[in-house]
Order: sequence, then C-alpha cells, then structure tokens
Amino acid sequence: MTQPAILSTGSYAPPRRLTNEELATMVDTSDEWIHSHTGIRARHIAADHEAASDLGTIAASRALESAGIAPEEVDMVLVATSTPDYLSYPATACIIQDNLSCTRAAAMDITAACTGFVYGLETAACYIKAGRARYVLVIGTEVNSRILNWNDRNTCVLFGDAAGAVLVGPSPDGKSRVIDSVLRSLGNDALALLRPKGGSRHPLTFTPEEEKDFYVQMNGKKVYLFAVSAMGKIIEKLLRRNGLTIDDIAYIVPHQANVRIIQSCSQRLGIPMEKFYLNLEEYANTSAASIPLALDEMNRKRLLSRGDRILTVGFGAGLTYGGNLITW
Amino acid sequence: MTQPAILSTGSYAPPRRLTNEELATMVDTSDEWIHSHTGIRARHIAADHEAASDLGTIAASRALESAGIAPEEVDMVLVATSTPDYLSYPATACIIQDNLSCTRAAAMDITAACTGFVYGLETAACYIKAGRARYVLVIGTEVNSRILNWNDRNTCVLFGDAAGAVLVGPSPDGKSRVIDSVLRSLGNDALALLRPKGGSRHPLTFTPEEEKDFYVQMNGKKVYLFAVSAMGKIIEKLLRRNGLTIDDIAYIVPHQANVRIIQSCSQRLGIPMEKFYLNLEEYANTSAASIPLALDEMNRKRLLSRGDRILTVGFGAGLTYGGNLITW
Repeated sequence: MTQPAILSTGSYAPPRRLTNEELATMVDTSDEWIHSHTGIRARHIAADHEAASDLGTIAASRALESAGIAPEEVDMVLVATSTPDYLSYPATACIIQDNLSCTRAAAMDITAACTGFVYGLETAACYIKAGRARYVLVIGTEVNSRILNWNDRNTCVLFGDAAGAVLVGPSPDGKSRVIDSVLRSLGNDALALLRPKGGSRHPLTFTPEEEKDFYVQMNGKKVYLFAVSAMGKIIEKLLRRNGLTIDDIAYIVPHQANVRIIQSCSQRLGIPMEKFYLNLEEYANTSAASIPLALDEMNRKRLLSRGDRILTVGFGAGLTYGGNLITW
Repeated sequence: MTQPAILSTGSYAPPRRLTNEELATMVDTSDEWIHSHTGIRARHIAADHEAASDLGTIAASRALESAGIAPEEVDMVLVATSTPDYLSYPATACIIQDNLSCTRAAAMDITAACTGFVYGLETAACYIKAGRARYVLVIGTEVNSRILNWNDRNTCVLFGDAAGAVLVGPSPDGKSRVIDSVLRSLGNDALALLRPKGGSRHPLTFTPEEEKDFYVQMNGKKVYLFAVSAMGKIIEKLLRRNGLTIDDIAYIVPHQANVRIIQSCSQRLGIPMEKFYLNLEEYANTSAASIPLALDEMNRKRLLSRGDRILTVGFGAGLTYGGNLITW
C-alpha cells in the first residue's frame, strides 16, 4: 500500500491587516478585551475582488512549486471551505483546478467547517493508500469576512481570511507519512455554530430585518466547552492507539480558534503550551485554512524536520472534530 | 486490501407530486414542451418543513435497515448535496449522523453538484480500501425546489427533490464491489451552471431586484454539449481500462438530467437506449440524489442481480463529471 505523506506546503493571507484597534472603531470592543479573551491581535481581510478560489489558488500554486510537481500530475483538487465562491455550485475546487491548469484532476469541495482540512487530509491519504490517486492538493481556504455579521462583536472579532495548502503524495522515504487520523461528528449540537438562513432548512428571503440570520451565529460557551473536550479526546486517542506519548510529538498544530481553548486543553492534559504552535494572534480564526496556514508557516520557519511527529487537531461547526498524526 | 461493495440501498421522494400540467399554470410552459425537450412528466417537491437532512435521513435509514447494520457500526456519513440544510455550516451530514444515531461516525458533505454521488461513492470506496472505514453511508439528497427561480421556465421545469442512499462496506462475497471510477472536472466552464450570488465571490445583498441571482442559472446549450461528451468519455474510459465491452454491462445508470442527453449519448456510442435506466419522467433532475434514487428503484424492482456489472455516469455543475464501475 502506498504510504501518503505531505510533500510540500503553501499559504496566502491577504495583505490587508485589520487590527483590534481598528476594529474597535467599527464595533463596541477593544484590543484589551479581544486579546485577553481570545489571544487575537489582528486578522487579514480579503480584497473586495478576492473570493475563496483566489486565495486558495495562490496557496496551492506555492505548494505545487515547492514540491516541483507539475499541475497536470495532480489527480485531485480537494478544497475544504465554508465560504465557497458560489453557493450550491460550482465547487470552488473546480475553479482552482482550472486556475492551476490541473487538467487531469478531479475536483470536489468538502464541508466540515473548521475541521475541514483534517477531514481533507485523511481523505487525500485514503485515495493514495487505495491506489486511486498519486498526488492530491488539499486546500483550506476561507473568506470568513463575507459571512460575518460585522455588528455582532461576539463573532466578527474572531475570524479572518486566509488559505493554506499541502500537496499529498507518495512518501519519498517511507518515513514521512500521514500515520493515523480521527474524524468525528456531534450532530446533536449542530446548531451551536451556524449560518441560520439561506439553505434548504430556512430558504433565502429578502427582508432586511432578517439579514442577521444570513451570517454566522455562535453559542460561544457551548462551542468553547466542546472544543476543549474534543481537543483532549483527539490528542489522547491518537497517542494511545499509536503507542506514543506526548514526548514523541514535536508539535501539536491546533485549529486556531482561541488561545483560551488551547490553554485549557494544555492544563487539562498536562501538555506544556510550547508544544502547541500558535499564530492566531496575527490571523484570528481562519476556519478550514488555519491548520494548513500554520503548517506552511512552520515549514517556512524551518521548525519541522523530516521524521518529526506532529499532531493536527481540528474542531468546529457540525459539530465536527478530528486530528491527523503525521510524520513530517 | 478490503474490497468495497454496495451492500444496500434506500431512497425517499416527498409525496407532493408537481406535474407538468400543474407547472404550466405557474409559468409559461406546457406538458408537451417539457416532455418533448426533457422527457420529464413530473417532479416531487419537499414539504415546507423538509430540508435536505430530512429527506436524506429517511433514505439512509432505509439503506441501513435493508443491510441489517446498526447505526453505531457506521464509520462515516458522507452527504453529497448542493442544497444543504445550512449555508457554510453545520454540514448536513452532521445532522443526519445525529438523526440516525451513528454515534461513532465521522460526517462530511461533498460538493460536486450532480456528480456528487459518484464522487462520494468513490471516496467511500477509498476509505474502505485504505482500511480507514468499514461501513460508509453515501447519501445524495437535494431540495432543489428551494434554489430554483420559479419565474425562469428554462430551469425550474428541470429539477426535483429526492434523496437516495447506499451503504458501502466490505464485499460479502469478494465479487460484489466498486471496481473502478473516473472523476473529472472542467473548471474552465465553471459558470455554465451556477448560483451566481451569495458566496464569497458575490456576497449576499438584500435588494429584491437582485433576487434572481441567488437562484440557479444555466447556459443550457453549453451544459447539454458538455453532458453528452462527458457521458461518452466516462463510459468509454471505464470499459476500456477494465477490458470490458458494453455487452459486459447490465445497466448504465446515468444522472437523470434530460432524456435527450442520454439519447444523444446512446446514438453516438451505439449503445441501445434499453441499457440506460431512466426514471426522470417521474422525478426530473434530483442532482446528487438521482443516481442513488435510481439504484434503489432498480434494486426494489429486482432489476439487479449479484454479479451484474453496472456503470454509473454523473455530470453537472463545476463542471464535474465521473462514473463508477460496480459489480452488484
């Protein structure tokens, strides 16, 4: 069975940087409140002309270039996004497939909210293990600024726009590989984090007073408690069933939602904060883009050496959660 | 390597049946025009309280029951839909996972428009072959009536609501299995069939005059030519690379968009129309639900015997296309 590995990474964050200070001139909040409650100092915001495919195309082209793989060698473009270019269809993956000239590639989008990249990476790994693909681009790309209610200070301060991508392919040395993954769903809390209107449950209507229901709404306390519990479960499960301890792990790369979630998890599991890679101070929560964005940043900073074991941990709306155990 | 097979099927079409005659009282069209141009006589329409997850839950529960597999044995709930309960998140798969009490299951949605089920079936097969799942529910479910412009006679006559599901698991006899699949994307024609507004490309706005851009729009001629060509490519490719001829295939189960597309393909490839299973006269185009709805109908009619080879062929927005070669 071919062993799948992450061959390269790429990312893109739009240059426009919206700081907490600037945000405090738009809604009733402050840098002090946001930073102390979330760890966030800034977020990047896509230009008006940029959609999810534009960010994802740049991230993916950087990953391809870094791996030295030609676009026409890619078998599948797999896009995790909650902010696709278009509702319903076409898939954002199809647009990126065309932008990159991946002429032979299948293309599909995956919806698993902020856990989307974790699901996508495992899906890519399965295609490769099953012998049904050789190279799969897994892209997390989000223009969260387009689905936020900028009058709701409980949500609009939390999110940002970015894209990250990895090229998954046959392990070059048999050592680098995606070893294991856990993927889960808690649909009983499906309404804890959602866009209430516009889908087949509550179709589009055009009264301005309902506009808020078209944007993200969150039961913050419920999501917080879920996230801390989910992170713990994933880390413990992946370690236990692979006969590892936390000392065998170079880094945990968590979904970058809120530093407090990560601190709680760190205390609960007795894992030092230094094990968790954090960049949410700069980017806020970029949903499905956050893990590949972090991976690319770590890669470019040369924090990762071939042979290092890392754990990704994702959690989000759905509720979905999951993680990947990877040898870099 | 575990060989994945379709273990059972299930489907659900809402009881409300909208005939061409009734539709002709709503928009300027006629039974004669619709039937002669598309082959459609009726379509089923979800009740106001029914969303994609409701239809999908019924179809999937029927598949589970038919296979005699308990919900907690399911490893993944994979939903192909273009009309999810909610935009962005939560995934419709999470809601179905909860409705069915598939407590251990991962849950994700796939976007590949009308090709969604074909992509989903291959994805399920890869998870099973890779040893990362044993039982996967693949569900196509659509409430297309919610995303149609009921003033546009070129599109609203074409679609219907329904759900179909298959349970994919280890082949019980080593003979029944998903043998091969082709998955493709032509993102260069991404705008031929789309919902123009509401995504990250053209965000939501609330002016009634723009309302039409929130609904499905189609370049009918472009989609028609693409569909005939795509069907031919898939059928020929799956036959050729598996050393088969059309005589080895009991049925082709095409995406049920328009009988003329299937007739053109039949003529072009010299395949008799009797090889193609058709039910679009009753259901119209149910997008990602059409192939599993047809499979379940064929199964219940006892048209399929274990050992029969069948071909599915999907095509749709993206543009995506693909097919699965299956031994029943």
